[in-house]
Amino acid sequence: MPPAPVPPEVSAFLEQVNNTVIATLRPDGSPHTTATWYLWDGDRILVNMDDVRPRLGWMRRDGRVAMTMIDPETFYRHVSIMGRVVEIYEDEDRVDIDRLARRYTGKPYPRRKLPRVSVWIEIDRWHGWDRDPREKAKPDRSRLPV
Amino acid sequence: MPPAPVPPEVSAFLEQVNNTVIATLRPDGSPHTTATWYLWDGDRILVNMDDVRPRLGWMRRDGRVAMTMIDPETFYRHVSIMGRVVEIYEDEDRVDIDRLARRYTGKPYPRRKLPRVSVWIEIDRWHGWDRDPREKAKPDRSRLPV
Repeated sequence: MPPAPVPPEVSAFLEQVNNTVIATLRPDGSPHTTATWYLWDGDRILVNMDDVRPRLGWMRRDGRVAMTMIDPETFYRHVSIMGRVVEIYEDEDRVDIDRLARRYTGKPYPRRKLPRVSVWIEIDRWHGWDRDPREKAKPDRSRLPV
Repeated sequence: MPPAPVPPEVSAFLEQVNNTVIATLRPDGSPHTTATWYLWDGDRILVNMDDVRPRLGWMRRDGRVAMTMIDPETFYRHVSIMGRVVEIYEDEDRVDIDRLARRYTGKPYPRRKLPRVSVWIEIDRWHGWDRDPREKAKPDRSRLPV
């Protein structure tokens, strides 16, 4: 797994609106996964959640996370990262969740009641995959250096 | 997160050919995620990998895993499980990887050189999501009890 920083092709992939799963660590050290929205600002990853989500407490306790971003066009192109939470704050004006919602849905986030919390993640390592087993290998078509 | 066994609707969802991410634990306890094929036999989850994959060693060391299965038709319907590895063996005749490959690609697995290993996982807990934020809530359309 190559260390960060990610190369330009991976950065470009992370800028897409990808279907993504995040893994956090429960207090007993076991992994927990769920789907999430995210955005990559070229330097760090933003995720955002209701402040009642258990994984928020888990990330405060142990900030080690992993994420897999899957191209919405094909399951066979994806990038995974390992990283650390570097910043957590209440998204008071809902700027961050609206930014995420606009990326994924084209609109501000519809639910406005529960407080939202933003979490920023730095990438330590990454790995990727860009090969469809249903096709013959076409390395020249690969967009990811994997 | 409800404990296993999963209810019938969740079992039916797991029987689909879903886009899936698996989280394992590295020796330092940090999470690692990657995309994977899987199948659910109604009782346990099968995954299969080249025997050189680092995560195989990690699962032998600490069998706690988590997985998120995403409906290929919509990112907004998914089930996540937490579980434990209960069986690992070499897939000598490539029966398991061919079974997985046929599910996902319609054909036997194309690469026949590297030894493959099968890993069976039992579910301890699960959680799910079945709500598209781009649509108004339509609880009657929900296929998952989430």
